[in-house]
Amino acid sequence: MRNVEITGYGFFVPEDTVVFKEKIRHRIPEDSSETQLSMAVKACKAALAKAALDITDIDCIVSASAVGIQPIPCTAALIHEQIAKGTGIPAMDINTTCTSFISAFDTVSYLIDAGRYNRVLLVASEKASSGLNPNQKESYELFGDGAAAVVLSKCEDGTSGVIYGLQNTWSEGAHDTEIRGGLTGHLPKYYHEGSEEYFFDMNGLKVLKLAGRKLPGFFKEFQEKSGYSIDDIDMVVPHQASKALKMIMHRLDIPEDKYIDIVAQYGNMVSVAIPHAFMWGIDNGRIKKGDKVLLIGTAAGLTASALLIRY
Amino acid sequence: MRNVEITGYGFFVPEDTVVFKEKIRHRIPEDSSETQLSMAVKACKAALAKAALDITDIDCIVSASAVGIQPIPCTAALIHEQIAKGTGIPAMDINTTCTSFISAFDTVSYLIDAGRYNRVLLVASEKASSGLNPNQKESYELFGDGAAAVVLSKCEDGTSGVIYGLQNTWSEGAHDTEIRGGLTGHLPKYYHEGSEEYFFDMNGLKVLKLAGRKLPGFFKEFQEKSGYSIDDIDMVVPHQASKALKMIMHRLDIPEDKYIDIVAQYGNMVSVAIPHAFMWGIDNGRIKKGDKVLLIGTAAGLTASALLIRY
Repeated sequence: MRNVEITGYGFFVPEDTVVFKEKIRHRIPEDSSETQLSMAVKACKAALAKAALDITDIDCIVSASAVGIQPIPCTAALIHEQIAKGTGIPAMDINTTCTSFISAFDTVSYLIDAGRYNRVLLVASEKASSGLNPNQKESYELFGDGAAAVVLSKCEDGTSGVIYGLQNTWSEGAHDTEIRGGLTGHLPKYYHEGSEEYFFDMNGLKVLKLAGRKLPGFFKEFQEKSGYSIDDIDMVVPHQASKALKMIMHRLDIPEDKYIDIVAQYGNMVSVAIPHAFMWGIDNGRIKKGDKVLLIGTAAGLTASALLIRY
Repeated sequence: MRNVEITGYGFFVPEDTVVFKEKIRHRIPEDSSETQLSMAVKACKAALAKAALDITDIDCIVSASAVGIQPIPCTAALIHEQIAKGTGIPAMDINTTCTSFISAFDTVSYLIDAGRYNRVLLVASEKASSGLNPNQKESYELFGDGAAAVVLSKCEDGTSGVIYGLQNTWSEGAHDTEIRGGLTGHLPKYYHEGSEEYFFDMNGLKVLKLAGRKLPGFFKEFQEKSGYSIDDIDMVVPHQASKALKMIMHRLDIPEDKYIDIVAQYGNMVSVAIPHAFMWGIDNGRIKKGDKVLLIGTAAGLTASALLIRY
């Protein structure tokens, strides 16, 4: 077990909602001054407050968002400017799209366990609403905005930590979930009214088929390699990918009372969905200190990632 | 020492050049089919060939570019599609802009040392030429395109490894080096003829002043904490930031015969500059197996990063 502990967490979800039938999506209104950056800052401040720490107690700031704020500099540097200006705290981005939080948590746990850093502020923030295509009903009605942050600290007494992590990427699915435009692949200068390259584009059915084919083997491998079966796990926090979550969990033989499903209330908040659902689980009594919690999800790529922690 | 070894390396630099007085910049011509992705693929294949490895021998693909190809999915997944489709090799991006290669090398070395992965393919690729502003002479004449990749393997005999790594970010400089447009901060839909938000924008003098003020203390701290002084280091591979490199090296008391300066021949290749200069050093007899090599540089942020390795 890598000796890491979540000593603080916080999130921010816009109060404003858009409702599609009974599905609630929290989204920043067009005329709001709220941004991807301002949400990240609020989540970071909430996590620091909960940890009763000052920013100067932090050794590294890691941004784990799918989409960045600017092409240059990295998102963590822009967050740094809002909460850590005047300090020399290192800032870095880690990105695997929707599973960025898992990847960053997993990766950073090695650095903390090895003594490189004692306390890392890990933050995911997404303004998904700004990239949605009104002509693509499925994704247009699915996504939500928000931010979530945790303070990961060295665990001194061995009670908390990372038990096992596994990631796979199957690039047969690289174009099933995309925003193609904005960087070097499709430069902004080619934007024109009506061009859909700059919108989020998802072929939900293809994603679901590929995930359905790959995930059972992935989860079987995870249980075998980690030595923990679903019976040994207290709670599963899946990526809130879509309403197909129930079907996927069923396919993986994860019992209904053993996973968190808040898709109807929050939709898919991209990289924020997993940490937010985790925090929702704590705040709603579904996750207790000491529980063995499995964070698991798929991301554009197609990537699958799973991380078993002892909270 | 973290037990990691470079068992293969390769780079790709476009043959086409643009010459400003005596400064040579290698850049993809406008009508070429070469892209950030195709360059990354060439560098990866060269590194794998040099390591005499097949892609199926690789445990993880890490992209360490400053600017991505698409907002979604991450750049590593798109590279995966070209060289690893059909496999489940995990793909992840790590980004600190120009020092991304150092950050990724440093970070990944913990994962390899701890046994998570045995062989990681690390690749940086940049098509800087597509973001340059013809109205900003300094940056317009500075940058070059290219890609560089290494295979990082577990070192079994303790002869190679990472000795020490240090990063600092001082966000007073967050807006001295930017591309503001293309992601959520300035959406592509706001692009209009003449808008400069979507171009690379650098205040070279401000960067230089901040770096000049911060780097001496940073390098002093590095030498103290690592226990290695400049006398113990065989070769320094600095980021080829600009023609001010000589001045900065002088400021850090690094002798002229102890660092690689190929700014005149290649310019600043963003995240590719450090690994490319490192490989240039090997190919030109400046770096030998077993040498203690310091990778060091600044990045937008302002970030400073240094990594002492035994090659």
